[in-house]
Amino acid sequence: MPDTYAARRSQLRDRCAAAGTGAALVSRPANVRYLAGGAPNGAVLLLGPAQDTLVRRAAPAQDPAEGRLDDTLRSVSLAMTGPDPVVAAAELAAAAGADTLAVEEHHLTVARHRALGAAAPGVRLADLAGAVEQLRLVKDEEEIACLRIAAEISDQALGELLESILVGRTERHLALELERRLVDHGADGPAFPTCVGTGANAGLPGHLPTDRRVEEGDFLSVCLGANYRGYRCQLGRTFVIGTSPDRWQIELYDLVFAAQRAGREALAPGVEHRHVDRAARTILVGAGHGEGLAPSMGHGVGLEIDEDPQFSPAAMGKLDACVPVTVEPGVHLPGRGGVRIDDTLVVRPEADGGPELLTITTKELLAL
Amino acid sequence: MPDTYAARRSQLRDRCAAAGTGAALVSRPANVRYLAGGAPNGAVLLLGPAQDTLVRRAAPAQDPAEGRLDDTLRSVSLAMTGPDPVVAAAELAAAAGADTLAVEEHHLTVARHRALGAAAPGVRLADLAGAVEQLRLVKDEEEIACLRIAAEISDQALGELLESILVGRTERHLALELERRLVDHGADGPAFPTCVGTGANAGLPGHLPTDRRVEEGDFLSVCLGANYRGYRCQLGRTFVIGTSPDRWQIELYDLVFAAQRAGREALAPGVEHRHVDRAARTILVGAGHGEGLAPSMGHGVGLEIDEDPQFSPAAMGKLDACVPVTVEPGVHLPGRGGVRIDDTLVVRPEADGGPELLTITTKELLAL
Repeated sequence: MPDTYAARRSQLRDRCAAAGTGAALVSRPANVRYLAGGAPNGAVLLLGPAQDTLVRRAAPAQDPAEGRLDDTLRSVSLAMTGPDPVVAAAELAAAAGADTLAVEEHHLTVARHRALGAAAPGVRLADLAGAVEQLRLVKDEEEIACLRIAAEISDQALGELLESILVGRTERHLALELERRLVDHGADGPAFPTCVGTGANAGLPGHLPTDRRVEEGDFLSVCLGANYRGYRCQLGRTFVIGTSPDRWQIELYDLVFAAQRAGREALAPGVEHRHVDRAARTILVGAGHGEGLAPSMGHGVGLEIDEDPQFSPAAMGKLDACVPVTVEPGVHLPGRGGVRIDDTLVVRPEADGGPELLTITTKELLAL
Repeated sequence: MPDTYAARRSQLRDRCAAAGTGAALVSRPANVRYLAGGAPNGAVLLLGPAQDTLVRRAAPAQDPAEGRLDDTLRSVSLAMTGPDPVVAAAELAAAAGADTLAVEEHHLTVARHRALGAAAPGVRLADLAGAVEQLRLVKDEEEIACLRIAAEISDQALGELLESILVGRTERHLALELERRLVDHGADGPAFPTCVGTGANAGLPGHLPTDRRVEEGDFLSVCLGANYRGYRCQLGRTFVIGTSPDRWQIELYDLVFAAQRAGREALAPGVEHRHVDRAARTILVGAGHGEGLAPSMGHGVGLEIDEDPQFSPAAMGKLDACVPVTVEPGVHLPGRGGVRIDDTLVVRPEADGGPELLTITTKELLAL
C-alpha cells in the first residue's frame, strides 16, 4: 500500500511540474487521505519541492477511522497549541526553496489562505484546483474492493431490518437501527446520515428521520450506506407497508424503477455524464413529474459520498471504466410520499459484462 | 422568537454601521441559524443595505433539525441547479446599492470569495471576521433553557447505560446505544460523535470507539452530549469496571477530579479565560502529568460544540455571566488508560449562586 500512495503522489507531482509549480499543499481531508493513506484531524500534505511531508498536530493516538498512514512518508508533528498546519507547511516549502506553491483554493478559507501567504512571503501562491479530485475519479481494484465490501455490509443491514416488524416504529429508530447494523457488520460507520422516510416523507431526497411512525399503507423509503476503510457506498430502496399496495403506488414505483434501470443501462465507458442523467430523467419528465426533480440522477462515490462525476443536465465530460457511481432517481408527491431507488455501480466495458452492480438488494416492490 | 432574531440582526447591523460597512453576508451555518432561526442546507443571510434577506436553495421540505426559520424574514429561493447562494446574495447586495459588503473570511473558501467578488464587481469586500461569533458568546435565557434540556437528556442517557451490563460489550456498541438513548429522550441527535474508551483507550480525548470490549479492571470513559434545538452540551465521566479499583486508578481519578473541581470553582464573571485553564492545569502538572495534556481545559458551547471562549494557557479575554462552558481536564497514561471528567456549566455571578452545573451525573468514582 505505501507504493500505491507514493505512485499517486508522483502522479500529482508530474501534473504540478507540467503546470509550472514545484510544490503543492493538499489540505482537503479526503485528498490528504488519498495521497497519504490517512488523514489525521487537521493534517495537510506538502508535496515537494524536494521531499513530501505530512504536517499534522501531535495527537495522543491515531484514530483508526482516519486510515493507516503511509509510514514511508516524512511526517512533522506540531504541538497541539502550535500554528495552523497549513501555515507550518508553507514555511517548510519556503525553507526548502519553493518559488511557487499550489494550494486548494476550493478548500482553504480566505483567512487561512492569507495566513499561509504571510508565512511564506517569497513564495507565489497558485491554485491546485481539483487536481487531486481528478486523480481520484478512476479507482484501482483495491479501492473497488473496499466499495464492494461497503455495499455488502449495506445489503446485510437492510436485509436484516426487513425481517423485523416495521409498523409502529419511528423513522428515527429505524435509522439508528440501520446504523447499528452497519457497524455490527464491520463498517467504520455510516457513509452519510441514514435517511428513513415514511408516509408523506417517503421519497424525499436527503430527508432526515423524524418521529413519524410507520403505518399500514405507507410508502417507506430508506437510504443508507457503509463507510468501509474510508470508502462510501449508497443503497436506497422503497417499500410498501401492508399487504396490498394501492394502484398509484404500484404505478409510481414502476415508473421510478424504469427510470433507474434506464440510468443503470446507460453506464458505459465513453458515455457523457449528462446522457446518464437524461436517460433516467426523460422517463420521469415524460410521465409528468418534471417539477421538483432532484438536480442530479446520481454521482460518483469513493472517499466521499458525493464526488465527481455528477449526473446532471449540464454536466460536462464522459465516463471512464472503473468509476463507481450511484444511479438514484426518485419522485416525491407532496403530501402523499414517493419512491427513490439508489444503487452503487462500477462502470465497466461491455466486454467485462457491463456495469458492475455493488448493491444487490432486490428492487422488486416488496410489501412488508 | 422572530423578535429575538430581529434584535440580533439589528445588533449586527449596528456593528457593521460602526465599522463603515452597509451590508454583511453571513455564510457560516451556526451564524445563519443564530440570526435567522434556522439554517437550511447552504442558506446564507444578507443583512442590508436596505432589507435583510435569506438566500437559499429551493428544497422539497424543510428539515426540522435545521431549526425554525424566522418567517418575518424575506427569503429568496434559488433553483436547485442555480448559482451558489453567496454569489446570488452578492448580486442582490449590488443591486440594492451596497458599496461595501462584509463577508466571513474565516468561513468562505478562496474560490467562493472570488466568485462572489466577480458577481458584484462594484462592491468593495470587507471582512466581517468573528462579529457574529462574538454576539453568540453570551446566551439569553431561552438559549440556556435549551442547553439545560440537552444536559438533562445526556444525564438520562448515561444513567440508563450505567444500569446495564457493560463487561464484554464493545466501545462501538456502547456509543451507538448512548446515541440511540439521546434520541429516545428527545434530542435532535448527538451534539458530537460519542466517545467511548475502555482499557488503554480510556481518557483519550476525542477517541473514536473501536471494537475493544469492556473488561474487568478497565477504566471506562464516556463523553456524550445531546443536540436540543441546535444547542449542544457535553458530559464526560470515567468509571472503573469491577468491584475493586486499583490504587493507581483511585489516585489518578482523585487527581483529575481535583483539577476539574478547581476549574469549575474558578468560573465567575470577570475571571480571565486563561485563569480557568491554569486552575485545572496546575494540579495535573504539579502531579507530574504535564506531558501530553490537552491544549485546553474547556471551551464554550452553544450552537456549536466547540466555540469561544477557549480555556487555554494563551487565551485572552474574561468571562461574562450567562456564558455556557465546559470544564474537562483529563490525564491519559499511554498503554494503561486514563481519566476524563467533563461538565457543562453556565457562568453566573456569586450573588446568583455561582456557576450553574447543567450536567448533574455524579462524579464519585463508580465501580460498575
